[in-house]
Amino acid sequence: MNIFAKRIAALRAQMQTHGLAAWIAPTADPHLSEYLPEHWQSRRWLCGFSGSAGTLVITADHAGLWADSRYWEQAAAQLAESGVVLHKIGADDDYPEWLAAHLPAGARAGVAADMVSRRDEARLARVLRGKNQYLCCVADLTGAVWHDRPALPATAVYPHPAEFCGESASAKLARVRQAVREAGADTHLLSSLDDIAWLTNLRGSDVPHNPVFLAHLLLDGGHACLFTDESRLNEAARRSLNEAGIATAPYEAVAAALGKLHGTLLLNPAKTAVSLLRHLPERVNICEQTNPSTLFKARKNEAECAHIRAAMLQDGIALCGFFAELEHKLAAQTPLTELDIDTMLIAHRSRRPHYVSTSFDTIAGFNANGALPHYRATAEAHSAITGNGLLLIDSGAQYLNGTTDITRVVPIGTPDAAQRRDFTLVLKSHIALARAVFPAGTPAPVLDGICRQAMWQAHCDYGHGTGHGVGYFLNVHEGPQVIACRAAANPHHAMQAGMLTSNEPGLYRSGQWGIRIENLILAQAVAQPQEHAFGEFLQFETLTLCPIDTRLLAPELLDDTERGWLNAYHARVRDTLAPHTEGAARDWLLRRTEAV
Amino acid sequence: MNIFAKRIAALRAQMQTHGLAAWIAPTADPHLSEYLPEHWQSRRWLCGFSGSAGTLVITADHAGLWADSRYWEQAAAQLAESGVVLHKIGADDDYPEWLAAHLPAGARAGVAADMVSRRDEARLARVLRGKNQYLCCVADLTGAVWHDRPALPATAVYPHPAEFCGESASAKLARVRQAVREAGADTHLLSSLDDIAWLTNLRGSDVPHNPVFLAHLLLDGGHACLFTDESRLNEAARRSLNEAGIATAPYEAVAAALGKLHGTLLLNPAKTAVSLLRHLPERVNICEQTNPSTLFKARKNEAECAHIRAAMLQDGIALCGFFAELEHKLAAQTPLTELDIDTMLIAHRSRRPHYVSTSFDTIAGFNANGALPHYRATAEAHSAITGNGLLLIDSGAQYLNGTTDITRVVPIGTPDAAQRRDFTLVLKSHIALARAVFPAGTPAPVLDGICRQAMWQAHCDYGHGTGHGVGYFLNVHEGPQVIACRAAANPHHAMQAGMLTSNEPGLYRSGQWGIRIENLILAQAVAQPQEHAFGEFLQFETLTLCPIDTRLLAPELLDDTERGWLNAYHARVRDTLAPHTEGAARDWLLRRTEAV
Repeated sequence: MNIFAKRIAALRAQMQTHGLAAWIAPTADPHLSEYLPEHWQSRRWLCGFSGSAGTLVITADHAGLWADSRYWEQAAAQLAESGVVLHKIGADDDYPEWLAAHLPAGARAGVAADMVSRRDEARLARVLRGKNQYLCCVADLTGAVWHDRPALPATAVYPHPAEFCGESASAKLARVRQAVREAGADTHLLSSLDDIAWLTNLRGSDVPHNPVFLAHLLLDGGHACLFTDESRLNEAARRSLNEAGIATAPYEAVAAALGKLHGTLLLNPAKTAVSLLRHLPERVNICEQTNPSTLFKARKNEAECAHIRAAMLQDGIALCGFFAELEHKLAAQTPLTELDIDTMLIAHRSRRPHYVSTSFDTIAGFNANGALPHYRATAEAHSAITGNGLLLIDSGAQYLNGTTDITRVVPIGTPDAAQRRDFTLVLKSHIALARAVFPAGTPAPVLDGICRQAMWQAHCDYGHGTGHGVGYFLNVHEGPQVIACRAAANPHHAMQAGMLTSNEPGLYRSGQWGIRIENLILAQAVAQPQEHAFGEFLQFETLTLCPIDTRLLAPELLDDTERGWLNAYHARVRDTLAPHTEGAARDWLLRRTEAV
Repeated sequence: MNIFAKRIAALRAQMQTHGLAAWIAPTADPHLSEYLPEHWQSRRWLCGFSGSAGTLVITADHAGLWADSRYWEQAAAQLAESGVVLHKIGADDDYPEWLAAHLPAGARAGVAADMVSRRDEARLARVLRGKNQYLCCVADLTGAVWHDRPALPATAVYPHPAEFCGESASAKLARVRQAVREAGADTHLLSSLDDIAWLTNLRGSDVPHNPVFLAHLLLDGGHACLFTDESRLNEAARRSLNEAGIATAPYEAVAAALGKLHGTLLLNPAKTAVSLLRHLPERVNICEQTNPSTLFKARKNEAECAHIRAAMLQDGIALCGFFAELEHKLAAQTPLTELDIDTMLIAHRSRRPHYVSTSFDTIAGFNANGALPHYRATAEAHSAITGNGLLLIDSGAQYLNGTTDITRVVPIGTPDAAQRRDFTLVLKSHIALARAVFPAGTPAPVLDGICRQAMWQAHCDYGHGTGHGVGYFLNVHEGPQVIACRAAANPHHAMQAGMLTSNEPGLYRSGQWGIRIENLILAQAVAQPQEHAFGEFLQFETLTLCPIDTRLLAPELLDDTERGWLNAYHARVRDTLAPHTEGAARDWLLRRTEAV
């Protein structure tokens, strides 16, 4: 029995004690974060699957992990010895339907009340109720069996330096308060960590790569209180909160504060844990909607855009140094593995002003590993970069003045015609989105269609979305907008001026190679529209500054418009970065920005 | 006080008698049809607005018509003297929100129970309940004041000739029964007239242009009953129903039959009137989903596609004759008005085999009238076709072997550069959709983005959707698929092989001209895909066969791919129609299909 089988057996004993026929271990924390502090990595602890998404379900005679297509290969490998069965989201029944079909009538399924959102609880309970089964939101059973469970993080909390803030916390609070009033609510609870960091202009490092800190925030028309351990706040952070009129209280005190509420409370049901809402008195009405801060945060203001451009310049300079070093080492036949890529990237980026950390785990995938969109090389399993092939590098950094995320593919040795054709198809899709023009408020699926058409014409496709929102010295994934074919037609997800989003079409040949070309793009009003009769039009400014390797190009597949875009982009990259680079980095920049 | 103000005053007296603070007059019938028999045109009778969509709301001191952007100009003109205020859907609050804001707490708003769907009742009641107001679904108050109200239609019902049926009624019934079983339901109620016509392979002419007949249909695993006045069925129709095992009963008897049900009833809440559901016993569970027949009907089978191609050939022949005659009359300076266009079109089409009727009211709009997407010339108001300008003609026919819908624009005199540029933009968008390639099941907004991108690049747009589903000798508008940016991301609306849809981008200059280019396109699997790794891909076959007037083209705005598509389309149109035309019609065909 391997370690994971033992842990699951221990959990089953707990289930029996509590009369639960099933236990649901989601990937979640009390803030419904995408990336979790170690303390809440109970799903990984139980089954060994290390992906960033997925739900483990344990019954008396079955343990199953539900994972999306990004993780099917990785999960199959990591679950091999644990006895946990992989259920493919999209291909198989999702876990609520599976539970409803497999549990007997009257059965009780449990989930940790601090790891399930109000929205997901409602959905799950509805499905189970259809078969006369019950959902029980209880204290986390894992707590009783996970003896060396990591403590809650408590990193230092500091102000986002005023020189980089796009707007004062007071001004942000005023905007949020007005939105709460307009929604007919009296109070507003925020549990999502990036919303709280944005609203308070504070940062921490409780979650790897994400400069956030554990907290809840409760506000009404006159008061605001940040629930986080006060000992974590440095002097500047305390002063800054004081200036914005935000009181503080211990992290756990939010429960008591909720218990005293009256009137109508605005909250986002997808971002509020059931455990918190237990403390709400019956008299409180709940008004469910996206947090106003989520919508405000997504639309970067002029000052923030200027800072992000400056961060992109620095990131571009670092990348010139990195790629020059990489090509030099390849030419010198220095032995290199995928792991070295991360080390080299950090070395170059960390020299740049205002660098804080990586913004996610670097993905450096050579050949077949590049075909796994969320591959991560580890000390135990990684490839040497040698022979012919494609090396996909997806990386990013947190700077005080911006968050970056870029993917490039580098030919190792001599690329073949099939690789160049695939690369060019991805580039055609990338260019189609980069030069798209569209009405303000265009729904996300519309933009995805514009991007994918070039690839679809060749009967190719990729299984992930084309774009995710990106924070401003905040999470590299943030809502509300995404660019994806199957995104819900929610008006809050529509593309608006000021939104910063990734443009990352790809093409993956299982067992062979993976290609992705990713820049960050900023939606902006068309400066000089040809017409005014048909409303406001937006277009994207590509902010990322780094050559796209034309050695992988099949130029005959580009049309004149596409070629023009590529040459103009490379001219801008060269003109912007050249004055700030020298030596091998500058030589590399000039070499890789030549017109095609 | 004009006639409409008098009718509204009479209705207000009824409202007072019944204690209603508001009366809602939707555009609807007990079958939730898009186009209504005269009997249910009470909204038009009350306010004079003749558009095909819109809701009239009457309170003690206000009468308002809610209309979408297609109808703003028309409604403003038609309501001018009635005292009814135009509320613009999309720009102003919708009527439920308006009512909630303007009625006092405790107020009762009434609507005819046979003119509101279960879905719309739920939505309306929810909005009103939020302000402690009530929705009352009652007998139609208009009945008491509309003394010369037209009777229910009772046209002859006949079988769709077996030679044109794509599938027997028995086979269709078996498929529907299986879907009902799979949904976990015991019985199924159909109220939508096109679903019933499709399922029974019967046709009528109760609604202008739409070959349907008033009926409900109730089925379970063993029985099926068509509720329609039996005297309307001709001998062949009776025999055909008998062969399919479908019993008949009077139209009104559906109420009693519903009262006897047990178990679970499947119905579409958007297509079932509240008045019917009153008769359901409490014990019946309702399973709400799109009617299985709606999904089956949308995907034409091979036999139906072959028939539709044959109908398109005949329609194309008629159009050659029509356009040749039109150009001859224009050259001869014969006086022509917009009204003559309809007459000429019907003359040419009615000579073709299997012609039944027009499929909607012909839109022939010269210059500024063409800028009204749903313009209809009338004896009282129409333009002479003279001088320079653009003539937009949107027309279609019902044939026993298919339903057609086509829009072309013809230059009168000499088109100017702005007109040619607009026409070419519309054509570029039309071509982008016509040659789109996309995965099976692609959501509708994705296809709309692919279509509009060419136009958006020039900062132009149009306010209507790009495509609607088209029936097979059935309604020219049918669901579930549409091609529209803001369509809900409902998986039932996704594009599937066999769906027949219009491709009709446009561009409208208010007060100047309107352009629309419309063909019908059939979604089909790519015959010889270049790749098989990325799932099944679909593309469109353009079925409509008629030249697109290249005298309106700015050829320098087309790229090579677009030019290639246009020339290939014209070559196919010429090669297909030339053997079937002669004289002036053939000369016109050859002249208008020359390569550019």
